[in-house]
Amino acid sequence: MTLRFLTPTLAALALASTPLLWASEAPLLGFGPEESAAQHALEDRFRAALNASDQDQWLKILTAEPHHVGSAAGLRNVAWLKDQFESWGYETEVVRYDVSVPVPTVRRMALTAPEAWEGSLTEAALPEDPSTQAPEGLLPPYHAFSAEGDVEAELVFVNYGLKEDYEALARRGIDVKGKIVLAKYGRSWRGIKPKLAAEKGAIGALIYSDPADDGYGQGDPYPRGPFKHETGVQRGSVMDLPLRPGDILTPYAGAKDGTPRLPLEEVETLTPIPVLPLSYADATPLLKALGGEVAPTSWFGQLPFAYHLGPGPARVRLTLEFDYQTVPAYNVIARLPGARLPEQWILRGNHHDGWNHGAADPISGLVALLAEAKALGELAAEGHRLDRTVMYAAWDAEEPGLIGSTEWVEDHAEALREHLVAYLNTDGNSRGFANLGGSHSLQRLMNEVADATPDPILDVPVTDRLRAKLRLSADKSDQQEAKAPELPIAPLGSGSDYSPFLQHLGIASLNTSFGGEGPSGSYHTLYDTYAHYTRFRDPGLRYGVALAELNGRATLRLAQAPLLPFEFEGVADAVGRFLSDLEGATEKQRTAQQQRTARLNDGSYALALDPEGAVAPPEALRPVPYFNFAPLRNAHAKLAEAAQRYGALTANPTALSETLRATLDRKLAQAEAQLTDPEGLPRRPWFRHFLYAPGFYTGYGVKTLPAVREAIEEEEYEQVAQEVARTTARLEALTAHIEAMNALLDAPR
Amino acid sequence: MTLRFLTPTLAALALASTPLLWASEAPLLGFGPEESAAQHALEDRFRAALNASDQDQWLKILTAEPHHVGSAAGLRNVAWLKDQFESWGYETEVVRYDVSVPVPTVRRMALTAPEAWEGSLTEAALPEDPSTQAPEGLLPPYHAFSAEGDVEAELVFVNYGLKEDYEALARRGIDVKGKIVLAKYGRSWRGIKPKLAAEKGAIGALIYSDPADDGYGQGDPYPRGPFKHETGVQRGSVMDLPLRPGDILTPYAGAKDGTPRLPLEEVETLTPIPVLPLSYADATPLLKALGGEVAPTSWFGQLPFAYHLGPGPARVRLTLEFDYQTVPAYNVIARLPGARLPEQWILRGNHHDGWNHGAADPISGLVALLAEAKALGELAAEGHRLDRTVMYAAWDAEEPGLIGSTEWVEDHAEALREHLVAYLNTDGNSRGFANLGGSHSLQRLMNEVADATPDPILDVPVTDRLRAKLRLSADKSDQQEAKAPELPIAPLGSGSDYSPFLQHLGIASLNTSFGGEGPSGSYHTLYDTYAHYTRFRDPGLRYGVALAELNGRATLRLAQAPLLPFEFEGVADAVGRFLSDLEGATEKQRTAQQQRTARLNDGSYALALDPEGAVAPPEALRPVPYFNFAPLRNAHAKLAEAAQRYGALTANPTALSETLRATLDRKLAQAEAQLTDPEGLPRRPWFRHFLYAPGFYTGYGVKTLPAVREAIEEEEYEQVAQEVARTTARLEALTAHIEAMNALLDAPR
Repeated sequence: MTLRFLTPTLAALALASTPLLWASEAPLLGFGPEESAAQHALEDRFRAALNASDQDQWLKILTAEPHHVGSAAGLRNVAWLKDQFESWGYETEVVRYDVSVPVPTVRRMALTAPEAWEGSLTEAALPEDPSTQAPEGLLPPYHAFSAEGDVEAELVFVNYGLKEDYEALARRGIDVKGKIVLAKYGRSWRGIKPKLAAEKGAIGALIYSDPADDGYGQGDPYPRGPFKHETGVQRGSVMDLPLRPGDILTPYAGAKDGTPRLPLEEVETLTPIPVLPLSYADATPLLKALGGEVAPTSWFGQLPFAYHLGPGPARVRLTLEFDYQTVPAYNVIARLPGARLPEQWILRGNHHDGWNHGAADPISGLVALLAEAKALGELAAEGHRLDRTVMYAAWDAEEPGLIGSTEWVEDHAEALREHLVAYLNTDGNSRGFANLGGSHSLQRLMNEVADATPDPILDVPVTDRLRAKLRLSADKSDQQEAKAPELPIAPLGSGSDYSPFLQHLGIASLNTSFGGEGPSGSYHTLYDTYAHYTRFRDPGLRYGVALAELNGRATLRLAQAPLLPFEFEGVADAVGRFLSDLEGATEKQRTAQQQRTARLNDGSYALALDPEGAVAPPEALRPVPYFNFAPLRNAHAKLAEAAQRYGALTANPTALSETLRATLDRKLAQAEAQLTDPEGLPRRPWFRHFLYAPGFYTGYGVKTLPAVREAIEEEEYEQVAQEVARTTARLEALTAHIEAMNALLDAPR
Repeated sequence: MTLRFLTPTLAALALASTPLLWASEAPLLGFGPEESAAQHALEDRFRAALNASDQDQWLKILTAEPHHVGSAAGLRNVAWLKDQFESWGYETEVVRYDVSVPVPTVRRMALTAPEAWEGSLTEAALPEDPSTQAPEGLLPPYHAFSAEGDVEAELVFVNYGLKEDYEALARRGIDVKGKIVLAKYGRSWRGIKPKLAAEKGAIGALIYSDPADDGYGQGDPYPRGPFKHETGVQRGSVMDLPLRPGDILTPYAGAKDGTPRLPLEEVETLTPIPVLPLSYADATPLLKALGGEVAPTSWFGQLPFAYHLGPGPARVRLTLEFDYQTVPAYNVIARLPGARLPEQWILRGNHHDGWNHGAADPISGLVALLAEAKALGELAAEGHRLDRTVMYAAWDAEEPGLIGSTEWVEDHAEALREHLVAYLNTDGNSRGFANLGGSHSLQRLMNEVADATPDPILDVPVTDRLRAKLRLSADKSDQQEAKAPELPIAPLGSGSDYSPFLQHLGIASLNTSFGGEGPSGSYHTLYDTYAHYTRFRDPGLRYGVALAELNGRATLRLAQAPLLPFEFEGVADAVGRFLSDLEGATEKQRTAQQQRTARLNDGSYALALDPEGAVAPPEALRPVPYFNFAPLRNAHAKLAEAAQRYGALTANPTALSETLRATLDRKLAQAEAQLTDPEGLPRRPWFRHFLYAPGFYTGYGVKTLPAVREAIEEEEYEQVAQEVARTTARLEALTAHIEAMNALLDAPR
């Protein structure tokens, strides 16, 4: 398709809607007016050094073979990466950890009744895509950190395997105790599904990708289109990441020679039951063999029959054995020391290991990072040394459980707490809209950076596209958001290497990508290849260049700003939103409980449910007490005031003395850590951040104010007051930290 | 399933929630206290005379063979029906009309590109269901009143073939001019789809049943479950029923000997292009052969591939020829003359012709009617002669276009206007909740009747189940409705034999059924059989008995009430709701227009749409003026006041003189007609009712305040003031009519 309808409209827009790039006269956050102009010029030079052909070439090299942790190709990529960084003038080291990773030795899944059939558990080679043809060293589809076992039982279809799905089954008299569950991928992180199934008593779990979700229900399957091939399997880790990521044998410590190892029996983060991922080709005979009640139609996927719940008559035998190998994980760390403030570090990272060829995940993000590093190296070679130290990291073993980054963070925790100002993560990319996530102290910086980064096709700031999308949303709050002076950035859950930095150490972090116009079903399958990526995800790697520009500008501002470009009004705004959301969710939970009780008491369920149907009324819920959120509200009000004062006092940063700025910089780098508590979150002390965490029962998706929110969601109402107090203490700590800076700024000079 | 969870709860409920049957001491509407007691006793005797085995036996007899209009089996059913009514003591006549009906002689549908393939256009015989095996005289799947033709063109997939679907195609640069369209059944009445396709320039149309809508996407297909078999085809009429039903050659007149006939070329109600219904077995090769853009995923059905829009490369040749036969349509009219007020008639009707065996449609409704007639005949034989005349009608030729009833109504218009008090329609039944629709002057009667009719499984009033369902609805207005003293009954659109009575003559009408717990995909297919019905739709015909009880009670109250049980507060309430809804819809249309214009002007579409995608911004809409609805509001206020006064003045009807009651009865029978205008609705003068009509572009579904509403919906804003005036005049006429009764009631006696 061509731009047939856009050209005339956009010409008009350039005048009508948004200031042109650079047109704003206001100085950049953390800069004075003169330094802003110099920064613009520097970023122009940086931008000019970016090109798509570099990224295309690197993508081809790095995705030539499957390159998971411990693989020969992974090691070759590491050596190549080190060479690249060194050729661009970086001090580069390869940091090795010896980590424990399971390699499957036996994977069998068979129907034993009503008739015998065995799943292929393999992905088809496609003549259209050379990468898929007998690749060397290919890992087959499996779930890393599944339990081993040889189990056989009746099968039950559990929809997405969420809590509400088990409630719906219970209303139909179906218990999964002693059964094997079959769940669809989606709606929750994969590791949550066997965790919850095991809690419900299941002895095994299968997870398949329904074509409704990322197969032909979304568009043409690969190779005709980008969506999931019928044999495609989403492999992946089922380590209990919401409990703790990283090497399973060395919690809280880098997995080096001499680090004590846990015995495997004491590891808490293994999934308790055997679990295996399936393609829909392999899931179809299972679903067809299920009897029992017809599932609720909202549970149906896109396979051409009515889905039944079971249990049985389908019986499944699942056999899994693993070889727990200790393999070397190699992080490549490249460093460009700062000229003026070398003890302040900016770290930009992306993992390099992939489940297979890993074109989209992770290499599309890694090649953007390389482009940034190459451009900064060129600037340095031309004499533009940066003020602060900039580092690039290519992490290993992210896929099995953020292992490379977590081990490095645990190994260097003290130095990072002291020196690391911010961590900028990516983990893949595709065509479309900017996804901006991270610490809200960096929200304004990211808005300024995104305002300066043009969409590579439309040549308007990427924020213009975001605002346009929000204006067209049916959601009123999106329409409001479109008008806000600053676009809210998304709080971070987990699922990539920012997690140890942000949630374990309390380092301000960002996570960015483009996406939404290059969809696919290739995630973690054999089909995440160079051919697939360049045909469907980001042809010409134009958004690869945009991602490099976005992160490069952010890196350069963090490196060069006379005063670190943090601010706290964005944090206060975010906390206010999280609180309103928490209060709203609590009220909704209370209303739902009250309504359910009322409808149970007045007999509505008994009267309205099909008297000859299979569905019983739901269980009554625990009444939701009224909670005292006032401490959080009071702390929030004080935070907002302190943040506003800090903003006013630092409006002209270059008017401050260099000494004061250096002092402030050190304090700014510690600000995010105020939101962490060394004792961590309830049930999972490794996670220490009290604003953002992955959901204990939802996985990657973020829970804001997690200690309080999850106590309420899990109906542990007795815990709420304590977690309100602990969360309030974190907000007060940040306020005190800001007020300490304000006092320095207020002091007579 | 057993009632495992209901028994204890319901025992408690009987005390807690609703008054037991008969427990209410208030007299029935239209009755005094003493007459109410007598009426209860009479209805008890009526109820005792009902039984399921009669209905089961009749169902088997009447569905033994396909019995469409003009068929030998149809004629046998007519003779049998006449015998039954006569054996129960009814004066029975068979009224014949000679009507024009097309019988297909050539039906071919073939792919001519990208490869040749011909559709089977047949439904499979099933060993599990003897009715489906080579039935004598079976009509094949076709659309009655399609154009003839032999057309070949590229195919375009148009989703449900609604206006908004063509807008979505236009945004993708797809025009159906000169093409053949393939539409899914659903969302609009079938006849609208070719009508709209022809307006857009298509030269042929195919309509298929996607398994998402009533096939395996809803549950197990027949014979494993009740849903649509892969070869099942929904045949049916595509006569332009929203323009005018009935014999196509004799508009406004009964099709008798000597009635002048239009030449076929002058008939306005034929579909302008050839159109044919398909099974999904026959639609699958067409959809698979389509290329072009992938359809929006919301357009996908449940077939196992991504749906494409075309046009082409699929080319289709569609060949249809019909033999327009003049066939006899036989209405069976049975009469039990009233003892006291024989000139006041109550008419209860259901059609007897079916597309095939027609077990659910229409025989399940007809056997309930027969049960009522038999029971009333027995009461009469025991000496319980009713006050007013009760008539039963079994209509012929409903399926091709409400022909039997319409011809009879047009033939007897004068007598019916003078004598007919109310028409009570049914047209099929199944297990579940009561569906109550009709004139709102009968709303209170229907509430009282439904309060007295127990659900046959749960033994609570059917209104209790309805209220329970409303209380459990997520919709706030449903929850409010559950608390209303009277449950609103549904306004009627079209699609069954009430249409000529209500919308052409202005006779107060009702249409009732049970449903929602016996779903199916058998509608108008070969599989609507005795075996299917009794396995899935209403095993044991318990809801058949409930339907007979519901309509029998209504009939008995209309026949026996000292003053006809009409009231007008329900009408005023309904008009108020319709007005609020109209105002709300207008405001929504205005907001949508304004938002679209704003988003076009600020470039949001240009920025947010995929710049390399296929979708252009939408067209601007015509600005929606502000309309003066005050005349309607003022008329509504006066109607409400008059209605309230009438209610107060008739609170004790037996205190009124018999003469006055007789006078009021005559006026009450004329009240609904006040809402009709002899000039009819814009574009379709046959439809004369200004409160209720089928949608001109949506079909069966009702449009309330249709003259005003459709002028706004169709953006004919210049017409709105005139239609407000005409609608206001109808409301004022009803108010004047009520005030005239009030004056009689106020007059010194």
